[in-house]
Amino acid sequence: MSYKIALDVSGGDSAPDEIIEGAVLAKKELNEDIVLVGVEKEIKTYLNKHKHSLSDFIIVDAPEKIEMNESPLISVRTKKKSSIVVGMEMHKQKEVDAFVSCGNTGSVVCAATIKLRLIEGVERPGIALMLPTKQGVSLVIDVGANIDCKAIHLFHYGIMASVYCELFLNKKTPSVGLLNIGEEASKGLEVLKKVHKLFTVSPLNFTGNLEAKELLSGNCDCIVCDGFVGNIALKVAEGSAEIIAKSFIEAMKKNFIGKVGLFLSKNNLLEFKRSINYAEYGGAPLLGVDGIVIIGHGRSNSLAVKNAIKVAVRELKRDLTKSISRRINDICQNSRVREIFAS
Amino acid sequence: MSYKIALDVSGGDSAPDEIIEGAVLAKKELNEDIVLVGVEKEIKTYLNKHKHSLSDFIIVDAPEKIEMNESPLISVRTKKKSSIVVGMEMHKQKEVDAFVSCGNTGSVVCAATIKLRLIEGVERPGIALMLPTKQGVSLVIDVGANIDCKAIHLFHYGIMASVYCELFLNKKTPSVGLLNIGEEASKGLEVLKKVHKLFTVSPLNFTGNLEAKELLSGNCDCIVCDGFVGNIALKVAEGSAEIIAKSFIEAMKKNFIGKVGLFLSKNNLLEFKRSINYAEYGGAPLLGVDGIVIIGHGRSNSLAVKNAIKVAVRELKRDLTKSISRRINDICQNSRVREIFAS
Repeated sequence: MSYKIALDVSGGDSAPDEIIEGAVLAKKELNEDIVLVGVEKEIKTYLNKHKHSLSDFIIVDAPEKIEMNESPLISVRTKKKSSIVVGMEMHKQKEVDAFVSCGNTGSVVCAATIKLRLIEGVERPGIALMLPTKQGVSLVIDVGANIDCKAIHLFHYGIMASVYCELFLNKKTPSVGLLNIGEEASKGLEVLKKVHKLFTVSPLNFTGNLEAKELLSGNCDCIVCDGFVGNIALKVAEGSAEIIAKSFIEAMKKNFIGKVGLFLSKNNLLEFKRSINYAEYGGAPLLGVDGIVIIGHGRSNSLAVKNAIKVAVRELKRDLTKSISRRINDICQNSRVREIFAS
Repeated sequence: MSYKIALDVSGGDSAPDEIIEGAVLAKKELNEDIVLVGVEKEIKTYLNKHKHSLSDFIIVDAPEKIEMNESPLISVRTKKKSSIVVGMEMHKQKEVDAFVSCGNTGSVVCAATIKLRLIEGVERPGIALMLPTKQGVSLVIDVGANIDCKAIHLFHYGIMASVYCELFLNKKTPSVGLLNIGEEASKGLEVLKKVHKLFTVSPLNFTGNLEAKELLSGNCDCIVCDGFVGNIALKVAEGSAEIIAKSFIEAMKKNFIGKVGLFLSKNNLLEFKRSINYAEYGGAPLLGVDGIVIIGHGRSNSLAVKNAIKVAVRELKRDLTKSISRRINDICQNSRVREIFAS
């Protein structure tokens, strides 16, 4: 039996074209049903124009569009016929098994929380981004769902990310680090000192505070931070990687042999570029909601969309939500954890 | 008449060697008196061993050392004979005109606030880092003095940075941006929404929220953020620049011609490396205290130390503290600014 994945065709900087192309790629590679949720006429026109088969997809009309900078709560409340609300409602009604969107992140988080509700025991959802590093992938949670985090939210993020790494990233006892401005337990905001204590008494493989310069080192499997800091950290990493790489190429090109060397190293450089390309890692799972929701980068191209759909399918193969619920309840019943929360 | 600059010889990862070497470089280049504050015996031994003239410097004994991870308040209260406390006390007593340290940042901020006090009107000091960008230098404030910022602190940071840019970085109407997770005024934490309003009605050249991917773009002269976020952002930038540059070089080296190209582009690459090297820009002024305090990177080498001393001398040539005080009082008396604070 194949899964049914709903894809938000209206969300993302290059929507609907790149999103539909991503669906076409996914359809070729996976044996799943893909439900295109968006402006029906636009979708059909695009598929016909590019000679893609209409019968490969289920098309669901969602004539309204939520723009990237709309208020999450207002957009979800007022645009009932938007792709985000329609797709999430289908997921709620179990008409689809998962929902993938590269649209307004806040609106996706809001719609998911309202419609799907949270997993028992979880208080806030968190976006877990798969960050390409020197040693593979680190999971950074949260990168924008929750900018005002309490200790319990951050603690749950660590637990959820740990479960995710075990189930899907083949790590037996994933290391968990707390993004902070110093390694010592006494560093940083009060809320982080409390989370440090919670992680320390928990059964997680907590490796302590992680300094921001280690973000891309790959030394830590799960990196916990609030959504504001996570979002800033990722965008700085993205921006500086681009600027450094460009400046490097410019410096090489000032010299003829440098230029030739660049040309001849083209394949190695492309391979390197691919290894740090977010698109290769698809979307970021929204952990904590009672369903499968994958959030893609606003700049997603067709490859990123295809990979986001693959992330959804991977999650469907094992019951993530039950595992998270069980682990959170287990850990939060621990007497030492309860003592810290009570203090 | 020459200025007297006190230098903390005990602070920094490579203290005292690199710090003393920095003083030697500064002494050669500048016509100022440099006061070495640290363990007298260590300093004399080092100077003698490396055949530097003892008579070039004034040496002040400070036998205690504050380690990098000591608690700021406790270290300053208990280690009265540490280089940080002794040096700051000399500055307070006007025995020196400025104090430069690459030691425990928290302790330097704490000692400066206690001993020198704050400029009239200012509520919190902020560290203003000169960040090398594609278009010169951006001033990022705060990068670690104040991790729990109120709106008024961030607002003052923007004003102080703006004054600094005008006086020392040759910018007539420096642009001021607020580091945030989106460009729209409605984005981010509540405190940032208030600061956005304050900047908007102020006479500063406020260019709105700045997304983190623009950090290194150089599009903004003064970048305002709280000390936690600023510290994380900088360290991510530093860490990713290193990792990307290394990976780039590795990719080039996989191929013989790539290797040759790298070798022949050596000078261009070194020039590029220098342009993004924090050491070239010296230390970060601690703005808001009633004195001249320059904080160097913990990893400072002799070049960085010399440049930090140069930053201090530059500040001494114009009265920064009076300019800051005047500007803050002017702007904060504005009726629209007062309305927002009252709301």
